[in-house]
Amino acid sequence: MRIVSFETAGEERIGIKADDYVIDLSIAAPELPTTLLELLELDSDLNRLLDGVAANAAIESRIAIEQLNYRPVIAKPGKIICIGRNYAAHAVEGGVAPPEYPEIFLRCSDSLIGHQSPILRPKNSSKLDYEGEIAAVIGKTARHIKAEHGLDYVAGYSLFNDATLRDYQRKSSQWTIGKNFDDTGAFGPEFVSADELPPGMHAVELQTRLNGEVMQNASTADFIFPMAKLIEILSECLTLRPGDVIITGTPAGVGYVRKPPVFMKPGDIIEIEAAGLGTLRNTIEDEQ
Amino acid sequence: MRIVSFETAGEERIGIKADDYVIDLSIAAPELPTTLLELLELDSDLNRLLDGVAANAAIESRIAIEQLNYRPVIAKPGKIICIGRNYAAHAVEGGVAPPEYPEIFLRCSDSLIGHQSPILRPKNSSKLDYEGEIAAVIGKTARHIKAEHGLDYVAGYSLFNDATLRDYQRKSSQWTIGKNFDDTGAFGPEFVSADELPPGMHAVELQTRLNGEVMQNASTADFIFPMAKLIEILSECLTLRPGDVIITGTPAGVGYVRKPPVFMKPGDIIEIEAAGLGTLRNTIEDEQ
Repeated sequence: MRIVSFETAGEERIGIKADDYVIDLSIAAPELPTTLLELLELDSDLNRLLDGVAANAAIESRIAIEQLNYRPVIAKPGKIICIGRNYAAHAVEGGVAPPEYPEIFLRCSDSLIGHQSPILRPKNSSKLDYEGEIAAVIGKTARHIKAEHGLDYVAGYSLFNDATLRDYQRKSSQWTIGKNFDDTGAFGPEFVSADELPPGMHAVELQTRLNGEVMQNASTADFIFPMAKLIEILSECLTLRPGDVIITGTPAGVGYVRKPPVFMKPGDIIEIEAAGLGTLRNTIEDEQ
Repeated sequence: MRIVSFETAGEERIGIKADDYVIDLSIAAPELPTTLLELLELDSDLNRLLDGVAANAAIESRIAIEQLNYRPVIAKPGKIICIGRNYAAHAVEGGVAPPEYPEIFLRCSDSLIGHQSPILRPKNSSKLDYEGEIAAVIGKTARHIKAEHGLDYVAGYSLFNDATLRDYQRKSSQWTIGKNFDDTGAFGPEFVSADELPPGMHAVELQTRLNGEVMQNASTADFIFPMAKLIEILSECLTLRPGDVIITGTPAGVGYVRKPPVFMKPGDIIEIEAAGLGTLRNTIEDEQ
């Protein structure tokens, strides 16, 4: 099951993705909510919840893919938990040994944008860097869950660009402000339910391209803390709830450590791709 | 204007605080929303929005203070932005020089509790420390606001206990996870509109007491980054919106740097008090 979040005339909508169109649930199943967050709160098993909806949908519920105005997969998650340095090679390029406990920080939902929306380079910094990542979406409430059961709580996955203002990330010891500028967290293109993907997204190739050039290329087999372990680590401390998002960290190849450093500038196109999850594509624009 | 957030039969309610009672707005003004966040989205000037409501309220809308089941002042803020090391003496006790840029991290709303609710000591750590703080609540959307106008965007204030698991705060370089355990962020007792308080809460005495003993006692005149400057620093990076919360940092006297260290344990009573804001009081209980 693939779910697309989009906007029509200023209204939040979700649709089931078919071939080259989506089935607008506000038409095909008007009794259901209009956000993925609320859908997951009803039932983490979207195949069950949406069983038969696509088959019975009227032609009028179809919207062509190229007409979609994409929104973030979930626009207002209860929490967006980001993992830093989760690929050994990226930890090394940042000059530190692989950690024994993950680096954890939060993003606010105001920083999110959808597929094809511009990432904004702010007035006060030109040090805008990409970070291609796998995003996991929680399906069921999780507290004190061991890794062996961790994947039972993940409803599905998407892609994320944890775009970062590197100078603000390092203005103090805490990275948070450099990770929370307006319109810097690209989340999409769509939600893919876990049953269509390898368990825990293990050994999936993740690639980031800037203007077509490969900048990051890694396998999630290199995760220091695999998906199931992240559920254990996080749920030891707090309750994970349906619609919460875990951003699993970025591999080696970010721009600021390159010689010379590479930063994103207006007109650039940044793409993140992983098998089964499609391609998240955004342009860069200057904040007005 | 003082607004109390509380719960009646599982429903969120807000009330105007009078002498020894609150006026339940769901009865006195049923056309208004039932959360402070939504109220502020309607109008940041609560005196204007609620003009005449208290004077015209029926006796039946009154609830005695001692019967209130307090909720966090705002249960689901769009963002909860926390400032670290904002009092020079607290920075020194933590072993670092006063910063040139604030330490910034986020709390998730799932960690919030109200006045008189228990702060939970989790199963996996006994290093539960208090941090008494002033909380500011944003009233109007703010982006690129200079400090000289910063206070125009603050609707009012409350108290916050940014209770922290010190071992988890230091498991990696990022403090976030130690600050986001379930039921550790006490927010209350009530919202007080800015017009009833000194501008920017400048030079207000803030005190934390553990079982009656004074543990922190400082003046906000010692802020390294005063309230108005925090609005400038944050709004340079992101959009502040009505109902967003800024936790302004804790003064010297936290438990973990004491010799011997002091941590909160079940049965303890932790109180935070500031002139004009009342007293935020919570007990400590073990997580079940």
